[in-house]
Amino acid sequence: MTSKKVERKTPPTNSAAGDLDVQALVFDAYGTLFDLNSFAKHADKVHRGRGNEILRIVRQKQIEYAMTRTMLKKYENFELLTRKAIQFALKELRLSSSDESIEKIFSGFLHMNAYKDVADCLSDLDEANMHVAMFSNGTQTMLDKLVEYAGLSLLAEESVSVDGAKTYKPDPKAYSHILTHLEDYEKEKILYVSGNTWDVAGAKSFGFRVGWINRTRQPIFDEALYDLRPDFEFSNLSEIGTLLK
Amino acid sequence: MTSKKVERKTPPTNSAAGDLDVQALVFDAYGTLFDLNSFAKHADKVHRGRGNEILRIVRQKQIEYAMTRTMLKKYENFELLTRKAIQFALKELRLSSSDESIEKIFSGFLHMNAYKDVADCLSDLDEANMHVAMFSNGTQTMLDKLVEYAGLSLLAEESVSVDGAKTYKPDPKAYSHILTHLEDYEKEKILYVSGNTWDVAGAKSFGFRVGWINRTRQPIFDEALYDLRPDFEFSNLSEIGTLLK
Repeated sequence: MTSKKVERKTPPTNSAAGDLDVQALVFDAYGTLFDLNSFAKHADKVHRGRGNEILRIVRQKQIEYAMTRTMLKKYENFELLTRKAIQFALKELRLSSSDESIEKIFSGFLHMNAYKDVADCLSDLDEANMHVAMFSNGTQTMLDKLVEYAGLSLLAEESVSVDGAKTYKPDPKAYSHILTHLEDYEKEKILYVSGNTWDVAGAKSFGFRVGWINRTRQPIFDEALYDLRPDFEFSNLSEIGTLLK
Repeated sequence: MTSKKVERKTPPTNSAAGDLDVQALVFDAYGTLFDLNSFAKHADKVHRGRGNEILRIVRQKQIEYAMTRTMLKKYENFELLTRKAIQFALKELRLSSSDESIEKIFSGFLHMNAYKDVADCLSDLDEANMHVAMFSNGTQTMLDKLVEYAGLSLLAEESVSVDGAKTYKPDPKAYSHILTHLEDYEKEKILYVSGNTWDVAGAKSFGFRVGWINRTRQPIFDEALYDLRPDFEFSNLSEIGTLLK
């Protein structure tokens, strides 16, 4: 077993593989199943050599806009926020921010590569009769395009957008929305997996079992969210299969 | 008059200098009155050449932590979040993150330079019998140290922390807290000034008159928050005096 529990200065929660009775898995999309670096590479084709900077600003602004609008109870969908984040990044970097440039770069957000470990993990979970879903801040259209482009047919009927609840993660109302979608399962029987630590904290606070996939090789889970830390840390999705055996 | 209204694709709000009946001004602290670049310079003394990177990560994480914990209704104070943000930044950059390093860098957050235009602006407002206050996500101790270090005695009795409301801007409950403190004034008679666009949006949504001081020379106000844009944009605080005449 290569997965590890999240251990810090204080003891971790009591979760252990031995008593893990999970019936459904929910995966976040961006940075969890889908590789944001492929967005950066796409942006690099539009503005050569600037893809990583564009990604950094777009991602920071997407999160800032989504959280700000949630706190102000003024929801706007993620397609709009993403386009405006791209526009902001291009203006900030003094690059062409014509509608055409924005649309070209936005297209990269709909055509991301899934991480290499995703397809096998989903097949394994399907074989093991686990219910699997994806839950994201992206709109339904954005998620459908992602899933189609990556050929992840197992997620085709099970991609759920926060848009149905008109709020963003980590608002508890967002997690309630995916729980409603998975009405046959109790939340303690759902393992929620995300690469974003604010999403991990939100899912944990809500009451899911939570796995953090540390895609960016962060040295430690954010100490500022330590009371909302995940039950498990994975470096690779194949570790989930091992954990559930 | 050098100040300008915020003009975009659609018409700005109806505010104009001519009908501006303001009786009190509230200033945000970090990035508005106090120069975060002086924090970067301080951090640079601890980890030479890395100050700007440390600032970028600390600032992003402070905001992410504060917003996440607000959405989850799990408030922790800004002193704790700032120390954890510094710790995160040091670990992320693979720099020494000993308690001593963290404390040395944290000290830079208490000893920031005020921008050059601050002292004169506060004196002018005081002479014009304007009520002036500072309102920040920082704790009372953090704010008191900032004000003392910068010698801004006019703010000594008028620095207010969100800590009294146990929530963070841009939560409307935070702005309610400063309004309670300014009980003699109606919110339409208060001009709220901030350099942070999410704070501008929060104050505008709450109902204050709002000025955005564009300290970072952003090309435009964030379009994703366009419906919550400021009434005025300033490049320098001296423009406020001109506006109020």
